[in-house]
Amino acid sequence: MMRVRNRPGAAEMLAARPEYVVQEPEAWKGRWSERFGNDHPIHIEIGMGKGQFIIGMATAHPEINYIGVEMQVSVISIALDKLVATELPNLQLLHVDGSELTNYFADSEVDQIYLNFSDPWPKKKHTKRRLTSPSFLAVDEEILKPAGQIHFKTDNQGLFEYSLSSFSKYGMTLEQVWLDLHESSYEGNIMTEYEEKFSNKGQRIYRVEARFQDKTKK
Amino acid sequence: MMRVRNRPGAAEMLAARPEYVVQEPEAWKGRWSERFGNDHPIHIEIGMGKGQFIIGMATAHPEINYIGVEMQVSVISIALDKLVATELPNLQLLHVDGSELTNYFADSEVDQIYLNFSDPWPKKKHTKRRLTSPSFLAVDEEILKPAGQIHFKTDNQGLFEYSLSSFSKYGMTLEQVWLDLHESSYEGNIMTEYEEKFSNKGQRIYRVEARFQDKTKK
Repeated sequence: MMRVRNRPGAAEMLAARPEYVVQEPEAWKGRWSERFGNDHPIHIEIGMGKGQFIIGMATAHPEINYIGVEMQVSVISIALDKLVATELPNLQLLHVDGSELTNYFADSEVDQIYLNFSDPWPKKKHTKRRLTSPSFLAVDEEILKPAGQIHFKTDNQGLFEYSLSSFSKYGMTLEQVWLDLHESSYEGNIMTEYEEKFSNKGQRIYRVEARFQDKTKK
Repeated sequence: MMRVRNRPGAAEMLAARPEYVVQEPEAWKGRWSERFGNDHPIHIEIGMGKGQFIIGMATAHPEINYIGVEMQVSVISIALDKLVATELPNLQLLHVDGSELTNYFADSEVDQIYLNFSDPWPKKKHTKRRLTSPSFLAVDEEILKPAGQIHFKTDNQGLFEYSLSSFSKYGMTLEQVWLDLHESSYEGNIMTEYEEKFSNKGQRIYRVEARFQDKTKK
């Protein structure tokens, strides 16, 4: 969880920008293409933080619709400031809890999910709070199209070890794994604020692309 | 592949110790328990090298039967010297090629497989030579009991990235992953000669326990 100072007036800032911050998000369940006004693929980032990654992605990929999900009001208001400045037509912000995404997305409505530098919750008793634990994966699987992918980056070794095994035990396939992303040949990486800061300090960045089983093929 | 100087007389040394170096290994296919004289589980190491790991394991676990597989005659002769000195009753050496193990083991005859610091074959065109590539996994799956495991260690980042994905794509489950074994809480690690040398130089050691699907349950 990103820690930021409480920002007075943040809730009002979100309410004042309904064109970017989705109001009554339940109403758009199953109708996101309508909201964007096109049938482009929908990619979401769960725990968008201050938005540098998803704004960079939306800028680089105008043919994809992005939705940034963030539950902390002060954090999402910072992302909103940046979005207002860029005026991107293919990015929407969603101020909700990542565990409740089935309230806001229909089955198979989402084409891809990004998780970046999620809270590691290092204590064993908090395993269930990790965004790569089975109950969150079940939500992700429901809203993703069949054989949809999660693309996950972290600098936290313990969380990455756990997540590789968690994805695998859930039945997902690890399409590709990077154990030192910034020293690899991977192109097009867009850094989060956190990634920029910690990779500059010499932290390795881990990345994995994991695919759910195609249950329609069974 | 471990590089060692050619050792004159190595082949004769192996032939002189038929109680440790299996002669006519085809003859023991399906009969390894008979050779050991008990029904203990059978664990094999493919690419045993100079034998420090498997001799350490056989010493620590007298209730398990070990078979070290190594195809280079000069290398296996060094392992033989150590084995002769220890006189372990639960370790046998097999001077054969790892790709031909179905000639020497019956279906489901092996309980566990170890791969340690296998040749990384870093060039893409040599992918098929890696011991964690699909054709080798198919051999391993055939000789392993249902839901059998491969325990794999390496210091080679590229090989580990490849192997995690290769295991997963083959349908194996990653039971547990270590991204820095020597800094972890893992107990009972027995180092290979290579591991001792390179971890002393500050190389990270990676480890994974990967399980085949239980096809008898389908």
